[in-house]
Amino acid sequence: MGDGGRGRHLLGIEELGAEGLRELLDLTDGFAEVNARPLPKVPALRGTTVVLAFFEDSTRTRVSFETAAKRLSADTISFSSSGTSLSKGESLRDTALTIEAMGVDALVVRHGSSGVPWQLARWLGRRIHVVNAGDGWHEHPTQALLDCWTIRRHFGGLEGLHVALVGDISHSRVARSDIAAFSLSGVDVTVVAPRTLLPPTLEGWAPGPGKLSVSGDLDQVIGSVDVVYLLRMQRERQTESLVPSMREYSARFGLSAARADRLRPGAAVLHPGPMNRGVEIDPEVADSDRSLVLQQVEAGVSARMAVLFQLLGADRDAPVGADLVGGLTGVPALDPAGAR
Amino acid sequence: MGDGGRGRHLLGIEELGAEGLRELLDLTDGFAEVNARPLPKVPALRGTTVVLAFFEDSTRTRVSFETAAKRLSADTISFSSSGTSLSKGESLRDTALTIEAMGVDALVVRHGSSGVPWQLARWLGRRIHVVNAGDGWHEHPTQALLDCWTIRRHFGGLEGLHVALVGDISHSRVARSDIAAFSLSGVDVTVVAPRTLLPPTLEGWAPGPGKLSVSGDLDQVIGSVDVVYLLRMQRERQTESLVPSMREYSARFGLSAARADRLRPGAAVLHPGPMNRGVEIDPEVADSDRSLVLQQVEAGVSARMAVLFQLLGADRDAPVGADLVGGLTGVPALDPAGAR
Amino acid sequence: MGDGGRGRHLLGIEELGAEGLRELLDLTDGFAEVNARPLPKVPALRGTTVVLAFFEDSTRTRVSFETAAKRLSADTISFSSSGTSLSKGESLRDTALTIEAMGVDALVVRHGSSGVPWQLARWLGRRIHVVNAGDGWHEHPTQALLDCWTIRRHFGGLEGLHVALVGDISHSRVARSDIAAFSLSGVDVTVVAPRTLLPPTLEGWAPGPGKLSVSGDLDQVIGSVDVVYLLRMQRERQTESLVPSMREYSARFGLSAARADRLRPGAAVLHPGPMNRGVEIDPEVADSDRSLVLQQVEAGVSARMAVLFQLLGADRDAPVGADLVGGLTGVPALDPAGAR
Repeated sequence: MGDGGRGRHLLGIEELGAEGLRELLDLTDGFAEVNARPLPKVPALRGTTVVLAFFEDSTRTRVSFETAAKRLSADTISFSSSGTSLSKGESLRDTALTIEAMGVDALVVRHGSSGVPWQLARWLGRRIHVVNAGDGWHEHPTQALLDCWTIRRHFGGLEGLHVALVGDISHSRVARSDIAAFSLSGVDVTVVAPRTLLPPTLEGWAPGPGKLSVSGDLDQVIGSVDVVYLLRMQRERQTESLVPSMREYSARFGLSAARADRLRPGAAVLHPGPMNRGVEIDPEVADSDRSLVLQQVEAGVSARMAVLFQLLGADRDAPVGADLVGGLTGVPALDPAGAR
Repeated sequence: MGDGGRGRHLLGIEELGAEGLRELLDLTDGFAEVNARPLPKVPALRGTTVVLAFFEDSTRTRVSFETAAKRLSADTISFSSSGTSLSKGESLRDTALTIEAMGVDALVVRHGSSGVPWQLARWLGRRIHVVNAGDGWHEHPTQALLDCWTIRRHFGGLEGLHVALVGDISHSRVARSDIAAFSLSGVDVTVVAPRTLLPPTLEGWAPGPGKLSVSGDLDQVIGSVDVVYLLRMQRERQTESLVPSMREYSARFGLSAARADRLRPGAAVLHPGPMNRGVEIDPEVADSDRSLVLQQVEAGVSARMAVLFQLLGADRDAPVGADLVGGLTGVPALDPAGAR
Repeated sequence: MGDGGRGRHLLGIEELGAEGLRELLDLTDGFAEVNARPLPKVPALRGTTVVLAFFEDSTRTRVSFETAAKRLSADTISFSSSGTSLSKGESLRDTALTIEAMGVDALVVRHGSSGVPWQLARWLGRRIHVVNAGDGWHEHPTQALLDCWTIRRHFGGLEGLHVALVGDISHSRVARSDIAAFSLSGVDVTVVAPRTLLPPTLEGWAPGPGKLSVSGDLDQVIGSVDVVYLLRMQRERQTESLVPSMREYSARFGLSAARADRLRPGAAVLHPGPMNRGVEIDPEVADSDRSLVLQQVEAGVSARMAVLFQLLGADRDAPVGADLVGGLTGVPALDPAGAR
């Protein structure tokens, strides 16, 4: 591939670049249309094999990728950390080369350690497309894609918007990928968090024209933004010890109904899920019309179809891929079930 | 749908009604015929996605549903409780809405708590079909379907038969669903159990013309019934503490070879599996010609195909579904493998 | 089937016989060609269901079989030991009969106890094809197939070659199956191991024309063999207690770079994986041109396609199967994705 920011892999947002990001968002438009069909399945990737290697549990992301791959007619094979050769002392590199040797086309990987997808791409670059489904506290590029797409769909565009990103910035791969993607798309971001949940520096987090600022006061920010993006308090990662108490955190940084009332008309609320209702978001707000949480989930399948299709479709001579952007005219529908 | 007892979901037997039950049994006839083909697969549900959410382990039921869905050409995605967002504190409702937002067509759910499938149907009713694969001690409607079908196939009809249902009635979802289905089909049921394994009341358990009675003496009943249906002593649920000893239970309520000899000619023995050989059933009886245990398993795949097909097929415009009952003339065979 | 060593199952190497083995190797040639296609999928087994029952963890072998089955367009259903009815006290026989009753076509089984696949074949022989994916310390026939094929491909033939098989012979199903397959193919084998890792006798291990000898000194053997096949030191099985120390084991039986330098030109190094780098093999050797480790993995998918195709294809009337050996002319390619 090579042109327009397209690469052999989807690892992080910055290397995708503004143009690559926009291309994927446009392609996601096409797959959102496919997903709205009564029969949301296309034969585009028939005969390809996508391995879903989740070394860290995430049903939500795994099911989204699996659904995406199956709607493209790819075969999928799942494995989780337990029961792999890694538990028998095999190196990650040998596990990776083994998967490659089986003739797999794409490896979707979630790993607790930052950088693993890049390392895999170095080892596997010749034959396998690596997709980062979340690595440590580092990146989660398909989340950023689906978030950008959800916001673009809601507002009709991205440039000039202002997002408040609230919560545990320092341990969040979502924060890092979203900030990069927003910035590349011309969206300004204000991160809102207690100091203990901010990284030592945010230098280099915003590679694009969108500006990045920091605030410790959600109330000061809330009336002037287009989007409030609430991060999950990852209680399973003991971030609790970094705030005085969950109750105080909620009082200062949670999106209560009262705070939500001060949002501009049309402003939207996003959350990557799973939500801690009552901690970072009030149930009432989560279920309100402002909340785009379920639209995000829906967009996730379309965005992941776009990623898999762009990476894997390029390997094929089939006419699909000829006119991807702008309607997927090259992607024929499956025949209705009864017809064959 | 709406007519004839058909609904958007399959939750419990009573709401299915006598007519809805008979329709599904007739449709099961058609899929039993499909399953007897050399290539037992039909394209009926191509492009649909069936999620199998088993929050309680059950390989037997999960594999049966998965086989059924795949033979209808649906895509399947499995997840079990461990590793889901639920373990991260997400509410069941948010998990359910997330699955819905991914564009899934059906959710087959097994859950340890009674009533969960109904709750899910309330939350998800607009887009997803919910199928109860067993909830707590409450219902297991596809088990009742396959049991009725197996008995109907064996005797040529259901009305007027008499079934002895033996064992732990109070902790058995199979008992509750089977009694309802038998009663609706005009089958009389005598539950045979020690008092400690009977619920406080059986009021409302038999909603149809078939009558329900209780006995504490298997020997008194055995000579006059058409079917002995043995329930599993669920040792993993510590029901052992409710009987003096397994040995005494077996002596009084187990189907020994000697007891089986007193059955009427043609009388049949059923068990939902997995069997505790030597506890509720003698190995000799389990392997005898009277035993329909394996026919039940076989019927399970056909019955689950019928359920998925009836619920999901109705969403589609395809010609299938036009003439379901009576031969599945609308369901074309897949072409033989070599042809395409 | 019946002729030429072909049976209903693939259980062990010896019962396959020299001719059956060669047939499968020839068929593997055909599937290696299929796997080199841009779209490595054939419709040969559409409509069939392959159950992968791994009662012992092995991601490597499971993924290889699953990939193989899916490339033949079979449906696959996985289950592992945890969560099966076996954990509820059901007998293995009842579990097996249940799987059979669901109408499954093939059962690929990995089990910690020797002999289980034979037992399953006795119970299930009428309808299901059983494939042994490793039983206890006993047999691992598809590993032997892929090893033979990898060596045949490398040297252009098997007869007259000499293999040194190094390591824990007594606890290795790979050793047992490989020795049988090498011997049947006219390959001489020298097992090289400390006494503590040798079985009491090797009588009957070499059923063919290839001779079997024993050595305790790798340095004496290394210069005269065509292949060094290193077995894995299975540390999870506490074989460590059978050698003075891993360090001493490596010093005497590990393939160091210095030892590898003494190999004949063109001699090859094999390992079944997962490798303990630095124990039985030096990283430098593992990554050298002599190492066929990744070719073995690649061959695994082709060999398992050959096995499944030979066993299941024979049940079908389709034209495939008519001209298997010698190019798979009967196996049409899938249409390119875009075409339908």
